[in-house]
Amino acid sequence: MISTQQIKLIRALHQKKYRDKYDLFIAEGFKLVNEALSSVPSLIKFLAFTSQTQDQINIHKVHKNTSLLEVTEKEFNKFTLQTTPQGILAVLKKPLTPLPEPLEIKDISLVLDKIQDPGNFGTIIRLADWFGMNQIFCSMNTVDCYNAKVVQASMGAIFRVNIHYIELKEFLNEIKQNKTHHIYGTSLNGSNLFTTNLQKPALIILGNESGGMDDNLIDVSEKNLLIPNYSNYKDKSESLNVSMAAAIICAELRRQTS
Amino acid sequence: MISTQQIKLIRALHQKKYRDKYDLFIAEGFKLVNEALSSVPSLIKFLAFTSQTQDQINIHKVHKNTSLLEVTEKEFNKFTLQTTPQGILAVLKKPLTPLPEPLEIKDISLVLDKIQDPGNFGTIIRLADWFGMNQIFCSMNTVDCYNAKVVQASMGAIFRVNIHYIELKEFLNEIKQNKTHHIYGTSLNGSNLFTTNLQKPALIILGNESGGMDDNLIDVSEKNLLIPNYSNYKDKSESLNVSMAAAIICAELRRQTS
Repeated sequence: MISTQQIKLIRALHQKKYRDKYDLFIAEGFKLVNEALSSVPSLIKFLAFTSQTQDQINIHKVHKNTSLLEVTEKEFNKFTLQTTPQGILAVLKKPLTPLPEPLEIKDISLVLDKIQDPGNFGTIIRLADWFGMNQIFCSMNTVDCYNAKVVQASMGAIFRVNIHYIELKEFLNEIKQNKTHHIYGTSLNGSNLFTTNLQKPALIILGNESGGMDDNLIDVSEKNLLIPNYSNYKDKSESLNVSMAAAIICAELRRQTS
Repeated sequence: MISTQQIKLIRALHQKKYRDKYDLFIAEGFKLVNEALSSVPSLIKFLAFTSQTQDQINIHKVHKNTSLLEVTEKEFNKFTLQTTPQGILAVLKKPLTPLPEPLEIKDISLVLDKIQDPGNFGTIIRLADWFGMNQIFCSMNTVDCYNAKVVQASMGAIFRVNIHYIELKEFLNEIKQNKTHHIYGTSLNGSNLFTTNLQKPALIILGNESGGMDDNLIDVSEKNLLIPNYSNYKDKSESLNVSMAAAIICAELRRQTS
């Protein structure tokens, strides 16, 4: 029931250039497929599944335009990205999320500058969903949000958060000029997060894993925040991972402004 | 310069039973080896490295009892656990961290109930180091802290945090009776973290990734905390990952009590 063409297509979607070309991406495994069925059923182009998993698909949620493709385990193994495949995979259209015109930004949104690790990005999307920050603005050189590992780590939150790739510098300068949002950055020379008065509407900029925020952006941000280090070995303790830092800053911003 | 015996030993240490038998574990890559040299040089039994990496070892920090073993790339590939090996690996004695007698617990410590994912555990160790919580008490069925992925994810913090595997229920009951520490748990039915008055000295209990804290422990804890959900899709948004939750709770406890 699955064609060689379709198998080729799924395999091609492991690469960004084909995700861009076809405007499609993959969500694999029960958790993600169920999230997709529940949040964005009309975006699912087709579902590929083995006979063992068929019973576990919520057939009532399947959109009329979604093709259902039963495959053998052998066929499934030709395109799965997982080491212990669950036998179910969805191919989805990328959601259309053009920048709203005129620009309308929710009360708190995240800005990612060159985040490279798919696991970090996915975790940040999950955090954004939890903290009701349903827009993420990314620099053009941030890792592709439709990378299978990002989708996986987001645990389905990617279906509920709008992600825009834009020229950050320009975008932030405009916001700064119009004074519509407070802009908070993160920096090792910043002000103590816990004693800084935070206000919304706000944008939080999170920087690259190793290099931090671009210097350009540090200048644009109104205040750069620092999570204080309580370590007994201050000279040795690693800086916090960017997704840890994101969790702590998002929580503190919500705490102070709710 | 490396014997077949030593290669076999390193490979054996990928498994918990041999780590327990020999009381040894592995730290691989520049970052971890340098952390080990800087924090626990006397625990390093031997360093295996390829000729290309030799110059990058801080020879002044090598302890007199550490054997230096130059290996070929081919030999290194026989025991590395990494897909892109850096050509440097340390075999270390497990630090001796018996429970202090009489029991002495630092002002804030973490308690892990059946954490299973090595990445989560390593991240929590890194957080503990950052927030100056240098003791972690784990249930016997928590994943082995000397698992290579835990060591890796800790980014070296494992050399600065004391980790004890104990019978949690008994341990916590004793603390509860003696009233030496506040005991905070985490629960989806708990009190709002941001509006609960937190005090130290304290223990924070973090529960298993899917099942949360054991019911037994929920009863022992003085207050169970909940990170409020601000999602626009509350019925759908995933609970936060345990290491995200740990980051937010540790930060809030430090914020309130500093």
